Amino acid sequence: MASQREQQLMRRALELAANGPARGVNPRVGCVIVSPDGTIIGEGWHRGAGTPHAEVAALSQTAPDAARGATAIVTLEPCNHTGRTGPCVDALLDAGIARVVYASTDPGGDSSGGGTRLRESGVDVEGGVLESEVDAFLGTWMTTARLARPHVTVKWASSLDGRTAAADGTSQWITGAESRADAHLLRSQHDAIAVGTGTVLTDDPSLTARDSAGALLAEQPVPVVFGTRAIPGGARLRQHPLPLIQVDGRDLAADLRLLRERGIRSLFIEGGPTLVSAFVRAGLVDSYVVYLAPALLGGDRVALTDIGVASIDEARRLTITDITLTGDDARLTLSPKGR
Amino acid sequence: MASQREQQLMRRALELAANGPARGVNPRVGCVIVSPDGTIIGEGWHRGAGTPHAEVAALSQTAPDAARGATAIVTLEPCNHTGRTGPCVDALLDAGIARVVYASTDPGGDSSGGGTRLRESGVDVEGGVLESEVDAFLGTWMTTARLARPHVTVKWASSLDGRTAAADGTSQWITGAESRADAHLLRSQHDAIAVGTGTVLTDDPSLTARDSAGALLAEQPVPVVFGTRAIPGGARLRQHPLPLIQVDGRDLAADLRLLRERGIRSLFIEGGPTLVSAFVRAGLVDSYVVYLAPALLGGDRVALTDIGVASIDEARRLTITDITLTGDDARLTLSPKGR
Repeated sequence: MASQREQQLMRRALELAANGPARGVNPRVGCVIVSPDGTIIGEGWHRGAGTPHAEVAALSQTAPDAARGATAIVTLEPCNHTGRTGPCVDALLDAGIARVVYASTDPGGDSSGGGTRLRESGVDVEGGVLESEVDAFLGTWMTTARLARPHVTVKWASSLDGRTAAADGTSQWITGAESRADAHLLRSQHDAIAVGTGTVLTDDPSLTARDSAGALLAEQPVPVVFGTRAIPGGARLRQHPLPLIQVDGRDLAADLRLLRERGIRSLFIEGGPTLVSAFVRAGLVDSYVVYLAPALLGGDRVALTDIGVASIDEARRLTITDITLTGDDARLTLSPKGR
Repeated sequence: MASQREQQLMRRALELAANGPARGVNPRVGCVIVSPDGTIIGEGWHRGAGTPHAEVAALSQTAPDAARGATAIVTLEPCNHTGRTGPCVDALLDAGIARVVYASTDPGGDSSGGGTRLRESGVDVEGGVLESEVDAFLGTWMTTARLARPHVTVKWASSLDGRTAAADGTSQWITGAESRADAHLLRSQHDAIAVGTGTVLTDDPSLTARDSAGALLAEQPVPVVFGTRAIPGGARLRQHPLPLIQVDGRDLAADLRLLRERGIRSLFIEGGPTLVSAFVRAGLVDSYVVYLAPALLGGDRVALTDIGVASIDEARRLTITDITLTGDDARLTLSPKGR
């Protein structure tokens, strides 16, 4: 059992982890080294690919031999893998660490097995402390690592009655300026943004992340188009600062694996209704962001079409994780229930 | 100009008004009598039809002649009408009140003109102090008085994507127990509850207000059915403690006037989509209560069908006046924009 002090220190380690880069290839990890009398003797976090892991960063702060017999509190199970840096397990053993407390389990692959190897080497190991909090913090990275695909966020903006356009197809603007600015910020926080070919042909979106004056934000998502129809040479998204990826959309899971191989760990799907509904139907959505305008439209232009739900007990149940006002609109953030 | 002290006292008058019966025929009115040196010498509120109006109740607390030269702060323009009680204007003049400050203007009919008559009698009169707050407080009564029809609240419960049932028609339950209990409380706060004949034939609702154990709440709304189809003799709503009113639904404005004549000042419309959409299309909705379940259904069973909006600039724009969680669901309360 982790002591109350160790749980407190895990919170500190999580704070340290948050110093790392949000969009890096590697997970954000924090580590605290604490002597047997409870004094913190080292703190560290991972600063991004190619730099020392959190455990090594924390150990580097300790005086020679000071870590002998000490406890390492770390947000992710120490890696057992030589990548651009050596295995953290070796660094911990070399330093003489006697006890390791970690939160999330390494989701697998080459780097896993660190806990077992430490135990086999005589270290006292305790996993799963504050695990759900740390799992949630690692969100995108965990999805990517566990499922070998990008973390998928679906976003739509609709009227209160679930329509994305009026009967004649006009849709500018259903939601207000604050909601649109908020959505552009979310675009910039994802590795890639996706729409279907229908949306490209109908709306000709630029798929860039822009500020309210129309200027490009510093971080841009890679534009991704799902579908087989050709994208016109003059389409706005061809002016995107990043090169376009088109996938055929016939097998969404395969498309996602392909995107992951292209380095995309988070995907922001903006529409249209056909693509969004296909992702929902396939059970491939990890989080939802829905802007609801205080407006009624009626008619046929629904945000979701058919998602394969025949009866009420097949409803896709979600959990509201956040609800807020963006200007005059309501923004709901949700995740699949039980995840 | 009303002084800051007078504005404070208007808030006090509004507090007093709230002591009155919420579902009475008469408006809830509060009154404070204040001497020229700023001391409160009388407070009163209207306790319901047949009892003294707020001004008379407040004056009755003052010592003989103490109200001479005093100011009356009252939430609604004093009436100039002999109903079951004499005009308040006469009572104020007889007491020697020198100044009258009021919030909302009497919306018209026999009782109006009190402000003018006081002015003509030499009283210093100031109207419109905290008017919008008091108008909002008077809500239902104001709608009824101004438009000669009941205040109409539309309620629906849908999935996040705006569906009220799955493809096969099953809908129990989309929202959770807390939302349903909340909606029953709202039923009990309205004079009448309405559905269309389609809902009667499909869902066989009881249209009673019940607690979570299924027991009837103390206050029940009158059951109203819109439509021409016959209601089966065995329909549950025939067991309702209050007699049923059926109107044909061909001219909603006329139906509402008829309901007003039957003593109904607030109407809670629960569906189905056809009836709700007809009310929205006719512009006869004063407030909306929408329960959104964190669930997705897709398909055809939309909460609103056609509301006569062809293009985005014809969207029915609303204002969110409240947003809250009821259990796992979100509840939004809205009113038509600019009202």
